[in-house]
Amino acid sequence: MELLKQKILEQGIVISDNILKVDSFLNHQLDPDLIVAIGQEIARRFHNDGVTKILTIEASGIAVALAAAIEMKVPVVFAKKNKPSTLQGQVYSAGVYSFTKKEQVTISVAANYLDPTDRILIIDDFLAMGAAANGLVEIVQQSNATLVGLGIVIEKGFQKGGQELRTKGLRVETLVTIASLTDGQVLFG
Amino acid sequence: MELLKQKILEQGIVISDNILKVDSFLNHQLDPDLIVAIGQEIARRFHNDGVTKILTIEASGIAVALAAAIEMKVPVVFAKKNKPSTLQGQVYSAGVYSFTKKEQVTISVAANYLDPTDRILIIDDFLAMGAAANGLVEIVQQSNATLVGLGIVIEKGFQKGGQELRTKGLRVETLVTIASLTDGQVLFG
Repeated sequence: MELLKQKILEQGIVISDNILKVDSFLNHQLDPDLIVAIGQEIARRFHNDGVTKILTIEASGIAVALAAAIEMKVPVVFAKKNKPSTLQGQVYSAGVYSFTKKEQVTISVAANYLDPTDRILIIDDFLAMGAAANGLVEIVQQSNATLVGLGIVIEKGFQKGGQELRTKGLRVETLVTIASLTDGQVLFG
Repeated sequence: MELLKQKILEQGIVISDNILKVDSFLNHQLDPDLIVAIGQEIARRFHNDGVTKILTIEASGIAVALAAAIEMKVPVVFAKKNKPSTLQGQVYSAGVYSFTKKEQVTISVAANYLDPTDRILIIDDFLAMGAAANGLVEIVQQSNATLVGLGIVIEKGFQKGGQELRTKGLRVETLVTIASLTDGQVLFG
C-alpha cells in the first residue's frame, strides 16, 4: 500500500532494530484519511470472503478495525486487556505477552459476541512476534467460529509472527511489510 | 439523539443503579452504522467552532472520536493509560481514578501532538463522575491549547461530572443523558 509506505518514510521513527514508532498517524495520533484508506484496503482484500464480524484488540487495533467495519458493514468486537467488572457471563480468554511492555496480559471477549456461525476477520495494527494475533486466533477457536484470516497494517517481516501463522495455514494479508530496521533505516519487504 | 436512545432501550443492560452496560454496540462490540451516526452528530454540534484536533482516551473513546474525526477532517489523539516505552520526550499527563475498576491510572499524551494553536474537542463515550474528562481537560490546559468543548455520547445526569464541568464554564454536548437507572429502568433526562 503505497500511501502507507510514504507515510512511514515521512513520519515513522526507527527507535531500535526492532521498534518502528508510528505514533503520529497510527498508534497515538490518528490520521483519519489514512485510517479510512487502510480500512478500505483491508475490506477490498477480504470482500469475497463472507466476513460477518471483525475481531481486534484494544487499543491501537480499534481505529483500523472500525474503518474496515464501516466499509464491510459488519460489527467489530475488540478484546479487552484487563477484564472489566462489566464483562460478565461466559468469556473467551487467552494469555498475550507484550514484548514492548514486557508483561503478560489476559485478553477477554464476551462469549455472546462470537457465534459459531460467524466468519471472523482478525485485524490489528502490527504483527511482530505474533503474540496478540495468536491470542486472538485462540479466542476464535474457543468460539468455534470460522477464522477467515488476518488483516495486518504493518508486519515486521524479520520477526517470526507472520511466518508462524502462515505455516499453520492461516491467511495473513499485510498492507506493508518491513524487511529491516537496521541502521535506523526502514527497508520494505 | 433518537437512534441512540432506541439502541439503549433495546440493548442496554442496567447492571446497578449506577452502571449501564452498552457492550453490544459501544464498549466491546461496535455497531459501525451507529458509531458513524454518533460521529456525525458530534461533528454537527461543533462544526462552527474551528476544531483542529480531537482528544480522547483509550480504549472506548477511540471509535467515536475517529468517527467524528472522519467527518470533521481533523486528527485524533488518544491519551494512553499506561505510558508505553515508545512514548518518549515531553509528555502531558494527569491522574484519573476509574470508579469501575477502582484504580488510579496516569493518562499521558506526547506533547508534540498538542500545539498551543490547536482548538481541541474532547470526545468520550461516557461521562459520569467526570474523572476521565477532567484528566483530559487538565492535559489540554498543560498544552496551552484552546479547549472548544466536550462531546459525550452518554452522560449519567445523576452523577456530578457534567454539572462540575459546566460550572467551570466548559461547553459539554451530550448526545443522550440518562436521568436515572433505578429499579433496572433507563430514564432519559
